[in-house]
Amino acid sequence: MFLQENPNYENPAKRSRSWKRRITEMRIAVVGAGALGLYYGAILQKSGHDVYFLLRSDYEVIKSDGLTVYSINGDFHLQQVKGFRTSTEIGVVDLVLVGLKTFANHLFEEIIPPLVGDKTKILTLQNGLGNEEMLAALFGNERILGGVAYLCSNRGKPGVVHHLGEGRILLGEYAQIDSTSTETVAACFRDAGVECRIVPDLKKARWEKLVWNIPFNGLCALTLKPVAALLKFEPTRRLIMDIMEEVIRAANAQSLLKDIPASIADKMVASSLKLGQYKPSMLIDRLESRPLELEAIFGVPLRLALAKGIQMPRVQQLYALLLLTEKD
Amino acid sequence: MFLQENPNYENPAKRSRSWKRRITEMRIAVVGAGALGLYYGAILQKSGHDVYFLLRSDYEVIKSDGLTVYSINGDFHLQQVKGFRTSTEIGVVDLVLVGLKTFANHLFEEIIPPLVGDKTKILTLQNGLGNEEMLAALFGNERILGGVAYLCSNRGKPGVVHHLGEGRILLGEYAQIDSTSTETVAACFRDAGVECRIVPDLKKARWEKLVWNIPFNGLCALTLKPVAALLKFEPTRRLIMDIMEEVIRAANAQSLLKDIPASIADKMVASSLKLGQYKPSMLIDRLESRPLELEAIFGVPLRLALAKGIQMPRVQQLYALLLLTEKD
Repeated sequence: MFLQENPNYENPAKRSRSWKRRITEMRIAVVGAGALGLYYGAILQKSGHDVYFLLRSDYEVIKSDGLTVYSINGDFHLQQVKGFRTSTEIGVVDLVLVGLKTFANHLFEEIIPPLVGDKTKILTLQNGLGNEEMLAALFGNERILGGVAYLCSNRGKPGVVHHLGEGRILLGEYAQIDSTSTETVAACFRDAGVECRIVPDLKKARWEKLVWNIPFNGLCALTLKPVAALLKFEPTRRLIMDIMEEVIRAANAQSLLKDIPASIADKMVASSLKLGQYKPSMLIDRLESRPLELEAIFGVPLRLALAKGIQMPRVQQLYALLLLTEKD
Repeated sequence: MFLQENPNYENPAKRSRSWKRRITEMRIAVVGAGALGLYYGAILQKSGHDVYFLLRSDYEVIKSDGLTVYSINGDFHLQQVKGFRTSTEIGVVDLVLVGLKTFANHLFEEIIPPLVGDKTKILTLQNGLGNEEMLAALFGNERILGGVAYLCSNRGKPGVVHHLGEGRILLGEYAQIDSTSTETVAACFRDAGVECRIVPDLKKARWEKLVWNIPFNGLCALTLKPVAALLKFEPTRRLIMDIMEEVIRAANAQSLLKDIPASIADKMVASSLKLGQYKPSMLIDRLESRPLELEAIFGVPLRLALAKGIQMPRVQQLYALLLLTEKD
């Protein structure tokens, strides 16, 4: 285990730190250590938190070589990383950071309980819709936070994460019960250099992300092409705009505190041009023969739209075609 | 040339025939000798017509080995086939049968004029919309016939055609000027064993074919899967029905003599289940790295729909994604 290699582990209270702490150190477990989980976990550990990673394929490499982040904000390496194969070995933490791929959400019930004590908060940074609801049903409304992460990151070889762009998090409480702990979590991220804004309407933030995620993740995964290839070809650029319009219309039927403005589509397309050859996560999942996050990004939004009488014909079509790719 | 090999060529009037002729022998030129052109040309020659094939890649093989049709109605072989490399060598005919892929329609002006005399009729059996219009603009309304061919056929090796299913033709006059010659052409096909019905509304017949062609050619070409793979998977079967509904709605906005009933979608899906592993022509075009017939099957119908204020969001999306495949 990594524990034996970490001289500070036995008694965390005795750790000496040379940097100034602005916020309380938290015990944080990262569940789902993909690009996103490893990146935010590494950032939080670097800023002084006590971070525990639940690892699978990277376990051996991270144990021997540590974790390396190649980041637009500066590369760094963590030699001492607390990696575990089971959450029972980690035990109760202050914050569970869920970065699991949503197609593995059925594992919540098995993985998360050992991490949860009375005061534990669970923050899902996962894609799409339905994740907070599943976590709330299992662990209670009051401890669930949602974060919409605008992060461009990819896995490198085992033990390596590439942070290619952005990184900001829009943070919200699922049930609007306990704003203090939301502030604490936000401060954690800010303290680690992550732009983190608390939003009054988590649902709106989630749908707004879908305005990007549905066309770009969907079309890139379907066509096996990076973002720029779709944006630089007029018929698919137009299609992206049309899909965004469908999603915005469905979003604004969901009783959001404020409507998502139609103008967001133009802005997202303009800013996405900078992404160039960037491969959205669903394209990478497909290229690496993993399941796709279709339920969270397509299935749930389509059902929520339909429940409000809104059709999303292009989104529905894209969903059907992506489902077909999973039958290969 | 094949001419020298055909002892009857020098003086067609002297030909002796052992079979009973029910209709007048016609001089027919087949332009665009793909699976469809070769199949109908072969059938017409077999029934006693004087058929001239404009050939490219198959020229040498057909010259030496003739033309073989493997057909669900019985295989046959034509040893003597009049194949030419240019239409000038063929000269004026009674009927030009156009089977050219629509992406090659810009060749009309170069290929067809030498075949056209005062009384020549031009029958396009091509896919999609816009072909009669192009031919009429070049050669005059009065000589243009359109045929909607329901034919499942594929090319085999050079000089070989596989006739896998159906074969019937719905025949119509483009400008409703000369019903006599339409009757003659229909009789030609019937005499050759081809089910051929004269329809009062060619436009309706063309749109009805699109109800099948747009979803099946489009989705099979996009996903690289045969008909059955899409029909046996519920999400794509539903998508096919949705696309058919869009096309029916657009069709019925085109001032047809009679509306296309919505029930046609169910019937087409049911009958297509029998096609199994059949690959529609657009899928074969893509597999063989040929251009796709996107303008005739998607571009023109989309513009005609839009001109009547009808959106076809799924068709538009499919079109954009297929256009993208052509950029590969």
